[in-house]
Amino acid sequence: MKIDAATKYRPFQPINLPDRTWPNATITKPPMWCSVDLRDGNQALIEPMGPDRKLRMFKALVAMGFKEIEIGFPAASQTDFDFCRQLIDENLIPADVTIQVLTQARRPLIERTFEAIKGSRRAIVHLYNSTSTLQRRVVFGLEKDGIKAIATEGTQIVKELVASVPETEVVFQYSPESFTGTEIDYAVEVCDAVLDVWQPTETHKAIINLPATVEMSTPNIYADQIEYYCRHTRWRKETIVSLHPHNDRGTGVAAAELGVMAGADRVEGTLFGNGERTGNVDVVTLALNLFTQGVNPGLDLSDINELVRVAEYCNQLPVHPRHPYAGDLVFTAFSGSHQDAIKKGLDALKRSNSKEWEVPYLPIDPSDVGRSYEGIIRVNSQSGKGGIAYLLETDYGVTLPRRLQIEFSQVVQRVTDATGKELTAGNIWEVFDSEYLKAIDPVEFLSHTTVPDAHASEVRHLTAKIRHKGADATIQGSGNGPIDAYCSALAALHGIEIDLLSYSEQATGRGQNTQAVAYIELKTKDGSLWGVGADRNIVTAALKAVTSAVNRLLTA
Amino acid sequence: MKIDAATKYRPFQPINLPDRTWPNATITKPPMWCSVDLRDGNQALIEPMGPDRKLRMFKALVAMGFKEIEIGFPAASQTDFDFCRQLIDENLIPADVTIQVLTQARRPLIERTFEAIKGSRRAIVHLYNSTSTLQRRVVFGLEKDGIKAIATEGTQIVKELVASVPETEVVFQYSPESFTGTEIDYAVEVCDAVLDVWQPTETHKAIINLPATVEMSTPNIYADQIEYYCRHTRWRKETIVSLHPHNDRGTGVAAAELGVMAGADRVEGTLFGNGERTGNVDVVTLALNLFTQGVNPGLDLSDINELVRVAEYCNQLPVHPRHPYAGDLVFTAFSGSHQDAIKKGLDALKRSNSKEWEVPYLPIDPSDVGRSYEGIIRVNSQSGKGGIAYLLETDYGVTLPRRLQIEFSQVVQRVTDATGKELTAGNIWEVFDSEYLKAIDPVEFLSHTTVPDAHASEVRHLTAKIRHKGADATIQGSGNGPIDAYCSALAALHGIEIDLLSYSEQATGRGQNTQAVAYIELKTKDGSLWGVGADRNIVTAALKAVTSAVNRLLTA
Repeated sequence: MKIDAATKYRPFQPINLPDRTWPNATITKPPMWCSVDLRDGNQALIEPMGPDRKLRMFKALVAMGFKEIEIGFPAASQTDFDFCRQLIDENLIPADVTIQVLTQARRPLIERTFEAIKGSRRAIVHLYNSTSTLQRRVVFGLEKDGIKAIATEGTQIVKELVASVPETEVVFQYSPESFTGTEIDYAVEVCDAVLDVWQPTETHKAIINLPATVEMSTPNIYADQIEYYCRHTRWRKETIVSLHPHNDRGTGVAAAELGVMAGADRVEGTLFGNGERTGNVDVVTLALNLFTQGVNPGLDLSDINELVRVAEYCNQLPVHPRHPYAGDLVFTAFSGSHQDAIKKGLDALKRSNSKEWEVPYLPIDPSDVGRSYEGIIRVNSQSGKGGIAYLLETDYGVTLPRRLQIEFSQVVQRVTDATGKELTAGNIWEVFDSEYLKAIDPVEFLSHTTVPDAHASEVRHLTAKIRHKGADATIQGSGNGPIDAYCSALAALHGIEIDLLSYSEQATGRGQNTQAVAYIELKTKDGSLWGVGADRNIVTAALKAVTSAVNRLLTA
Repeated sequence: MKIDAATKYRPFQPINLPDRTWPNATITKPPMWCSVDLRDGNQALIEPMGPDRKLRMFKALVAMGFKEIEIGFPAASQTDFDFCRQLIDENLIPADVTIQVLTQARRPLIERTFEAIKGSRRAIVHLYNSTSTLQRRVVFGLEKDGIKAIATEGTQIVKELVASVPETEVVFQYSPESFTGTEIDYAVEVCDAVLDVWQPTETHKAIINLPATVEMSTPNIYADQIEYYCRHTRWRKETIVSLHPHNDRGTGVAAAELGVMAGADRVEGTLFGNGERTGNVDVVTLALNLFTQGVNPGLDLSDINELVRVAEYCNQLPVHPRHPYAGDLVFTAFSGSHQDAIKKGLDALKRSNSKEWEVPYLPIDPSDVGRSYEGIIRVNSQSGKGGIAYLLETDYGVTLPRRLQIEFSQVVQRVTDATGKELTAGNIWEVFDSEYLKAIDPVEFLSHTTVPDAHASEVRHLTAKIRHKGADATIQGSGNGPIDAYCSALAALHGIEIDLLSYSEQATGRGQNTQAVAYIELKTKDGSLWGVGADRNIVTAALKAVTSAVNRLLTA
């Protein structure tokens, strides 16, 4: 860097909490979720959502199971105000869903906010003011008491106005905005002063939301701050402690998880992490992280592709190809050893009949989020036999013998090394077809007849019609079966010895379309070499496979 | 979800380490960095890099200061082998840079790997085999001893082959691949067995790389695993403990940070987190996280835009608009209160002459990574006066009085609410121009003359030429100065009272292009209302501003 970091940036001061307990905790139930897509997410868009996009997002959030949805900042934006009224006036809020609205702690804004929620069944009025050391100094020019007074006076105004919306159950939420930049003792002091005004009870709790408005430290320090808050507030039993992590340091998901371990009850976030700057914490990742630990997250992510479509349409921002659980490339493996392990893991899972998901390199079953297996294995120059074999098996029903997998993967790699391109299953089949099934030079097998020997019934004589170097020919040979006899005939034709190492055959397709595929392995000076043949007739398939192998041997 | 998580997924078992010390640690120096862009990153691309893209990436990595670069898996790919040979044969590796090559623990592959590095000055031979419980069972069908033997036998082969590359200083690296899925005691056992074979010393350390090949748990557990490893290996002093986090749960950055706090010396990662599935840990974010804590990261990220271009060209994958430090939207603020605070923070910083960076909502000075301030403030329907004022000030040099900022932000918001679009500084200027400067209906000011009163020199008589409702007219008035006199004249013309609340004026532009901009605030029934005028002559600017205000009052 051109700048000396030490002269320009001060390290974040950790708080002193040596007896912290959160590192021993695990998460065994989901937090309460609150979506802030329509507020924090929306305000950070190049083109904020209009009424149509807002409504589509709201419906998607409801459908996936959010029970608390922050729908906007109605006192600050006419669009937000109108949307809030539309939801209430057109009766679009399900009975078990609570809307949340943000407001600053100023009387005209709070009054306007109450106009916005009038007539709703239940609404969270979310009051905030910034409490951080830096903002007190450079933005507000106020001391600690002045900032606390903004919060308590705002709370008093909210309390007074509750009577103005008699149909509505008002839930109070307070955020000491820029909490992570606030002295922790002072943050507790402000929140407790606010709660002293509001007087929540265990049956009518208030929500205290502790935002990492800017993520300023490693996530363990945020967890320390949350645990410290929970242990020091006088109102712990009467409050729901909520997190609102941002992602400036790329650790928003971790901060939320460690914060929940530290005692938080609730998390505010957005689909795929939209929000100011680097975004809010991604609730999709949080929820699926829980799911893969055996915890039902309380949000339905069974059709993640549809959620991606909704988010991309409403936010006009892409979901990255490597986004956890949702990106296009997430359920893929290009590396040969990964592909091999996934293939074996899927096979083992099938054999075991176990319900428990355990497949190497796949922390979640793609089908649980509505993704298919097909994309998992993708073949490029870094891939190996496992992936290639998997694709031929999945898409073409051919199960290559293991040593043929190795041989063929080298054939494929010559192609990928030369082109630098990814190969589809179709491309791989073409390479297979041209390398093995179309190996008809110098000999193309046409047909055969066999008759038993007149004297020794275990010996069979075979006559085969072939094209040899472009001309029709007939060759003859004998052996203990058609393959053996045909090998003799070809050996005599070419003046070579043919040493058969292995033979196997399988059926592919079903009913009318059933074909036999035969695999023949011949011994060579250095090792072995394969041939493959396909035909409806199992004998013809085998003889074609022998032809393929011998042709490849002769032209190698 | 359609599936009950509890029946399908087993929670990750934490390891028992109640006396962990890492949560009290802070990071005060950077880890050793190793880029795996050309290996792990490359193998996960739809189209892996060809020689040109590989070389461009290699040069960029060297230029930004990487001293260790994993350049490929030469035994598994001809492209990788050829690239390795090219770097060595064409002398492209700087004297202080060490290449690293990956190999599986099989003799032919290790031999081929040594052919690849022959002639290099120094090379890290990176041996791996998978040690996880799951892979032992479903992939290898081997017990613990069998897996350990693969590792130790591979190490023995590497040791033997060192003599085959006499020009090269061989550094040995071993990865118990899928470490996070391996019983921690067994991982220590395998690594110690490998080190027993290799016999590293304090001056010639071996690297033990502990990959989260798949991220399987919250990041604190990875840190526990690292601390456990460091405390239990018999070879701690003779090894460099390295991390290789993936990002399946979106917490790769956190895992790396907590892992370094837990004792690791080195981190393997990629630019912007490219790599298999969800990617490797992002070294750019890690390095800049350190930088913002006053720790010089040892990597130069002064031109982050260029790094984005290199990564996007080589990987053919986008960097997300919200990617920490690098995304297009990261140094932006759309929210009104954020914009206001940023504007005040930047002002305070300018006034203070402090070198220390402290601006709300901006954890890093954008110019430190080669980004400009211009993009910071962006105006949409969620924005407020701060952002609008900032843009007019920055791009047009006009500093609106505070109450005019508030009035004008409502004018802008009517536009953004109606269009739903983001406004550029140019758009905002057009709105300002049409609302204030072009407010020439019913009166357009043309020119004026003033003369002092013959008897009382403090009184001036003004004659102004105007167009009134389309026709030229002359009006007259008197007062203690031209503004006062002109107000009288306009008041008489319209039969109204004009009450001047405030007046201010500023110069904009320089030299020949200097203009005066005047701001006039008039009292109204409900509050106040503004007018603005611009002219080279300061009196003309003021009279135009009065005209603007009166016209707006009359047409409101």
